[in-house]
Amino acid sequence: MAHHCYLNNKIDSVENTNIHITDLGLLRGYGLFDYFRTYNGRPFQWDWYWERFDRSAKLMKLPNPISKEKAYSVVMALIEKSGLEDCGIRFVLTGGYSPDAMKMIEPNLLIISEDIHPVKESEYEAGMKVISHEYVRDYPEIKSTDYKHLMILQSDIREAGATDVLFHKDGKISELSRSNVFIVKNNVIATPDTQILRGITRRYILELAKANFKVEERSVALQEVLEADEVFTTSTTKKVLPITRIDNQLVGSENRSVSKFLLEEMNHHLKTW
Amino acid sequence: MAHHCYLNNKIDSVENTNIHITDLGLLRGYGLFDYFRTYNGRPFQWDWYWERFDRSAKLMKLPNPISKEKAYSVVMALIEKSGLEDCGIRFVLTGGYSPDAMKMIEPNLLIISEDIHPVKESEYEAGMKVISHEYVRDYPEIKSTDYKHLMILQSDIREAGATDVLFHKDGKISELSRSNVFIVKNNVIATPDTQILRGITRRYILELAKANFKVEERSVALQEVLEADEVFTTSTTKKVLPITRIDNQLVGSENRSVSKFLLEEMNHHLKTW
Repeated sequence: MAHHCYLNNKIDSVENTNIHITDLGLLRGYGLFDYFRTYNGRPFQWDWYWERFDRSAKLMKLPNPISKEKAYSVVMALIEKSGLEDCGIRFVLTGGYSPDAMKMIEPNLLIISEDIHPVKESEYEAGMKVISHEYVRDYPEIKSTDYKHLMILQSDIREAGATDVLFHKDGKISELSRSNVFIVKNNVIATPDTQILRGITRRYILELAKANFKVEERSVALQEVLEADEVFTTSTTKKVLPITRIDNQLVGSENRSVSKFLLEEMNHHLKTW
Repeated sequence: MAHHCYLNNKIDSVENTNIHITDLGLLRGYGLFDYFRTYNGRPFQWDWYWERFDRSAKLMKLPNPISKEKAYSVVMALIEKSGLEDCGIRFVLTGGYSPDAMKMIEPNLLIISEDIHPVKESEYEAGMKVISHEYVRDYPEIKSTDYKHLMILQSDIREAGATDVLFHKDGKISELSRSNVFIVKNNVIATPDTQILRGITRRYILELAKANFKVEERSVALQEVLEADEVFTTSTTKKVLPITRIDNQLVGSENRSVSKFLLEEMNHHLKTW
């Protein structure tokens, strides 16, 4: 049993899967991806992930070479081959092999199964520490492969004893490098609605939150985050994870009843997903 | 005789060179490159290109895994293997193979020989047509592999009968997608000095220009470009190429004495390089 990879109609072990050096994803950063995981052996929110992947491809002007049905059958084959009950699945779509490092002929589609690296229980208790950095992702609404900023900031993040970066610009926050941000103030939940990638877990948590709290999708000032009762982030791997420090400042109170409630509801739902 | 590629201490044919799908250049856009060509079998301005490649690597926090001397010997071996008198050479440096699509272990360095695609004589006569687009490259001073904007704009460029895009922001121009921009007004040459990649041909032409004209490195307004006597671009493959249309507007006059002079001087110099 091992992880496998689909590349343009062929499935092989991840170990044996290579791409040619003329790929435009490698040479020109012309690539996008998506990532989801399974619970109880079944892709979580598959319809939503597929919709986003397909939309990213359109926005990036990359033809999507696979149908939803075919993609689903590949995903299920990879899960079976992994021998794991649950795993992560990464889609990567690039501009494909180019004769002159510029001209696009046809895209390359990779679908890869991966180990899941879940957040530890103790991290949910301790919360996340992040640094802040002035920047808006280029084409934030596309899940492109562009993580230059995060990679360049890695040593700053480590030196600060943090694990991620909160992007802000002109006094407004947007997102962490790979997840969305929510704040709670006086039992009202708010989350940015522009200059972000619309996370699937964000969408899921918004539905859950709206059924139980007042929720505002609007621009959120960095200052509001620093003064919030609770700050938390949502992502496929993090689910609902508190943020407890930004740079050198502690944020949020000890009472994290809203994020705890949302995480518990999500975990409860996932048991029978 | 065929083009070859150096990858981490091994040279093979380009055809047979692949990278593993866990490369961070592919998965996270964590990569940079450089490109130069030879004249008379000898790399043009090798010292300057090496200096820029090494600087890009430092700014991108990627360790440069090769010494200048070793890199030069690889370049000369690739040229010899190509069987061509002159060819293009591409360096690509990525974050390397990652166990979790994030953590960096050691970089991958590719050095590839390629065919040259020189600009045709008729194109120097007709000049280039470009579209304008409001955007500043992310980390413009790094020669990163990030060409998302150009790739997404390709269809707009084609539909406009153009071949490239002029980036501008807040009324100031920066550069074309892969080359620098100069204007001439009343025999004074000006070129942007911030938010650009400092091209090697830009540097070379600046030296040549300063010996013969008044030259200003400063911010340049888009409006100035539209009203200039001459507009031209410089790059490794284009040398000194007039720009004659921006969107639907003709730019520059019929008299292109400055750009013609610079191109002729460069061509003259290249004969005995």
